[in-house]
Amino acid sequence: MSEIPSDGLRVVPLGGLGEIGRNMMVFETTDDIVVVDAGILFPSEEMHGIDYIIPDVTYLLERRDKLRAYLITHGHEDHIGALPHLLRDLPAPVYASRLAQGLIGLKLRNNKVRGIEQVEVTPQTVAEFGSITAEFFPVAHSIPDAMGIALRTPAGLVVHTGDFKIDHTPVMSVPTDLNRMALYGEEGVRLLLSDSTYADTPGNTPSELAVGEALEHVMLTAPGRVIIATFASQIARVQQIVDGAETAGRTVFPTGRSMVQNVKMARDLNYIQSNAGVIRDINQHEKFPDEDVVIVCTGGQGEPMSALARMSMGDHRDVRIKQGDTVVMSSNPIPGNESAVYRTIDNLFRVGADVRYSQGGASNVHVRGHAAQEELKTVLGLVKPEHFIPVHGEHRHLSAHVRLAEAMGVAPERAHLLRDGAVFELTPRGGVVVDEAPASYVFVDGMSVGDVDHTVLRDRQHLANDGIVVVVVTVDHETGAVIADPDVVSRGFTGLDESPDLRKRTAEALHKMLERDRHPVETSALQEIVKDEISRFLYRETRQRPMVLPVVVEV
Amino acid sequence: MSEIPSDGLRVVPLGGLGEIGRNMMVFETTDDIVVVDAGILFPSEEMHGIDYIIPDVTYLLERRDKLRAYLITHGHEDHIGALPHLLRDLPAPVYASRLAQGLIGLKLRNNKVRGIEQVEVTPQTVAEFGSITAEFFPVAHSIPDAMGIALRTPAGLVVHTGDFKIDHTPVMSVPTDLNRMALYGEEGVRLLLSDSTYADTPGNTPSELAVGEALEHVMLTAPGRVIIATFASQIARVQQIVDGAETAGRTVFPTGRSMVQNVKMARDLNYIQSNAGVIRDINQHEKFPDEDVVIVCTGGQGEPMSALARMSMGDHRDVRIKQGDTVVMSSNPIPGNESAVYRTIDNLFRVGADVRYSQGGASNVHVRGHAAQEELKTVLGLVKPEHFIPVHGEHRHLSAHVRLAEAMGVAPERAHLLRDGAVFELTPRGGVVVDEAPASYVFVDGMSVGDVDHTVLRDRQHLANDGIVVVVVTVDHETGAVIADPDVVSRGFTGLDESPDLRKRTAEALHKMLERDRHPVETSALQEIVKDEISRFLYRETRQRPMVLPVVVEV
Repeated sequence: MSEIPSDGLRVVPLGGLGEIGRNMMVFETTDDIVVVDAGILFPSEEMHGIDYIIPDVTYLLERRDKLRAYLITHGHEDHIGALPHLLRDLPAPVYASRLAQGLIGLKLRNNKVRGIEQVEVTPQTVAEFGSITAEFFPVAHSIPDAMGIALRTPAGLVVHTGDFKIDHTPVMSVPTDLNRMALYGEEGVRLLLSDSTYADTPGNTPSELAVGEALEHVMLTAPGRVIIATFASQIARVQQIVDGAETAGRTVFPTGRSMVQNVKMARDLNYIQSNAGVIRDINQHEKFPDEDVVIVCTGGQGEPMSALARMSMGDHRDVRIKQGDTVVMSSNPIPGNESAVYRTIDNLFRVGADVRYSQGGASNVHVRGHAAQEELKTVLGLVKPEHFIPVHGEHRHLSAHVRLAEAMGVAPERAHLLRDGAVFELTPRGGVVVDEAPASYVFVDGMSVGDVDHTVLRDRQHLANDGIVVVVVTVDHETGAVIADPDVVSRGFTGLDESPDLRKRTAEALHKMLERDRHPVETSALQEIVKDEISRFLYRETRQRPMVLPVVVEV
Repeated sequence: MSEIPSDGLRVVPLGGLGEIGRNMMVFETTDDIVVVDAGILFPSEEMHGIDYIIPDVTYLLERRDKLRAYLITHGHEDHIGALPHLLRDLPAPVYASRLAQGLIGLKLRNNKVRGIEQVEVTPQTVAEFGSITAEFFPVAHSIPDAMGIALRTPAGLVVHTGDFKIDHTPVMSVPTDLNRMALYGEEGVRLLLSDSTYADTPGNTPSELAVGEALEHVMLTAPGRVIIATFASQIARVQQIVDGAETAGRTVFPTGRSMVQNVKMARDLNYIQSNAGVIRDINQHEKFPDEDVVIVCTGGQGEPMSALARMSMGDHRDVRIKQGDTVVMSSNPIPGNESAVYRTIDNLFRVGADVRYSQGGASNVHVRGHAAQEELKTVLGLVKPEHFIPVHGEHRHLSAHVRLAEAMGVAPERAHLLRDGAVFELTPRGGVVVDEAPASYVFVDGMSVGDVDHTVLRDRQHLANDGIVVVVVTVDHETGAVIADPDVVSRGFTGLDESPDLRKRTAEALHKMLERDRHPVETSALQEIVKDEISRFLYRETRQRPMVLPVVVEV
């Protein structure tokens, strides 16, 4: 890769451009690197058995001596979730707001990562990293203390919005600092990177204020217990629930491991404030009359192991859903999670609950945390960037955001639709992609990180769709002659179980084939032959293509 | 099961109550049965390898002598798709509108089902089936010629809305016949069954008219080709596209097998009307300038084998997406299909197309085909039913519809939230569930119907999440002694491939175990032991639980 000019800045997205998740942006000068965010991506349905996905950091490993810091915009999983994995190999100080540091700290402890310097930042923080200076500024998002970051670099001023919306009445946080953006705009911004999550949605995102009113209304009017599901990291939402509960004379019982942990941490840090006794341990909730109870839990995305999913299936340790319960889904399904979410809602109805969820604007029990088109245009108008890179979105969101930028006066050749791995170089002469960095998905599956590859996933997909047929052939290890009846076993494939006749004929076909190819062959060649012939035979008979796994035993 | 009283009517949902799909309702008197609709359900993501699901018709098979007719409300797959399967074992005349008969006829021919009487009905049709008389009346839906059905029975008048919305300006069809509903209401309706698909959505569904205007606008303003994806059965949508194309001076090229078949059939039956030469074969489209081309295709749900998905992957036979193309998604993702739909949209952007889709009400390129809350209330108000059964919906939709009915004055004990298989009996004394009929999912997987069961699906899920480890043990068939090194093979499981050491230790563990259990055991017992021990060993080592398939070879 070519050298970086002394007046240049490289901008390398290692995640988040082409997906909602694993956000990670590298800013690199001749001598220094700072990284903005290090998140995880949740798997899509065809990634069987995968827990989550983290960025490929080969690019950073090759430049580890230049790494000065991780700058974190806020404490959501898709921005901090990969830190425990990355900090082991690529240690550096982590700069983040107090709440984000609280969440990161929990994560590092849970993963036994030690010795990392955690630096707390405020909207006044200015931090120097050699040739790069970072200034943090507040933005409104669905978590308190979210930040945008301005970077002063040899190539000029760069503004990264982080995740934001323009909310003039946010909860537990200050509004997005439009003045700061305007000042940067007046100073002259060479490059803006801006949140694209809802760049295809017209209009404005409603204020969090509306959610507080909607939740309070439910708590005032519900006949029995109220159970509210949201993300464990939605600390502001929990505060709204606590406020509503106080008005409605209810007590709040958090449940779900991450919810309990986060609420405790947020109270310790004074983020969540409540009157004495308003928040209590879930195992006490049965001592209170139903109409005085609010349970706040995880599971708003239908996650199968979450507190809410367990309640819907009747196997939660502390809470059994009953007639008269009102469940509130205070979150919208993330694309891809809809079926799981609706399955949970249906199950809750089935066990007797009334469920409130946001359908066709039926209620304000949740609002989005990201800016829609008019807000994005406001930011583009204030910052007046020379160059523009849309971040945080699937390809369609990035495309929509590029169109908005062009409509707002950014020259088409300066609105850069990048993909993960693009090595973009900004100099006084312009901005251009100069190279490509590795940016493939790194799959985390249980204790295994990076071992699962596309072959494994393809195999799992094949197994899922068609099942497997194992064919065991026993041969004499000296002569190569077949010395026992072949054995045929299947799982997840119906043909053989349903038709004993087919099983017999498969064995016969195998037998005939082995008779025909009498000459001794190498084990690997024999495996290939068995696999091909049996696959073909089964497709002819059933029109299905199970995975055929040949095993040759030599005795 | 008890006998049906002579003044009684049994209503038995065999599908559609608790799911959007496989709609099928049995109406049974002492002597006669008519069936309303016989549809399929598309599989959810955890039903690996399943093509679709049809109703369990055990109840009908046990009463086949009473079966008089299938009454079809309209030609969508979730209402007619199971007919080819059911008519083989349960033949009876099929009553349906002309367009629905056209679609059913195609289906029967494709499946080589012969000798079925197809009776064409109109909004004037009155058909007698012994003790039951059926009257068809028009409703507006997203397909022309949709019908509601009124049944005169020994237990009184029953009204079934079919799928409908209240559209005063529908396309290619007449508005929902509210007068007829009012007349039935005045006469006295004992039971109303009504469409619940959007019973949780406030307000009214927009008219199809809005879609025509939105599509025409795209065709007038797009710089190059316009490619519109919708359901093949959306005949009215195709007419709107043809009308818009004529205004915009474009020629329409259908592609996708079912789209081409349906358009041809609809033209033959004079449903689709166009000026000469406006509809042409797709293989001619390259002879026309880009700005004169409209391609109408399947794939609005992101179906992987559809015309649109092929275009997005660059492997459609006739159409290669290029810069300047405008793709219109004239359909909304059905819950569960979102990830597939958005993947297709992202891929289309990636290959250079501009994609228009309905996001946050961004455009009217699609509207729903089902009534929302205010329309449902209008029907409840007109029909004034004594009893009410919500149909066509997931549990949450049925629950919401029951609440609407109660708000409209139906007594709570007469608003019946039934599930598939409930045997509901209506008599002058009241309405009550008297028994339960089999109503499990019948899975269709390739040529296999009903062979796949929950065990197979559970196995497929297990294989998908964790992969498989096959352990082959060779024993002497007389002594039971192990006579060759055990063989360990895996697929979709990373542990063994990534760690040769683990493979060796697994074989060793197996060896040790076999040494310990030296006494000869039955093959099946040996299999159990191998399975348990290796499962435990691998979990200890990897925290993963692959399926372990033990194979004992006797030589």
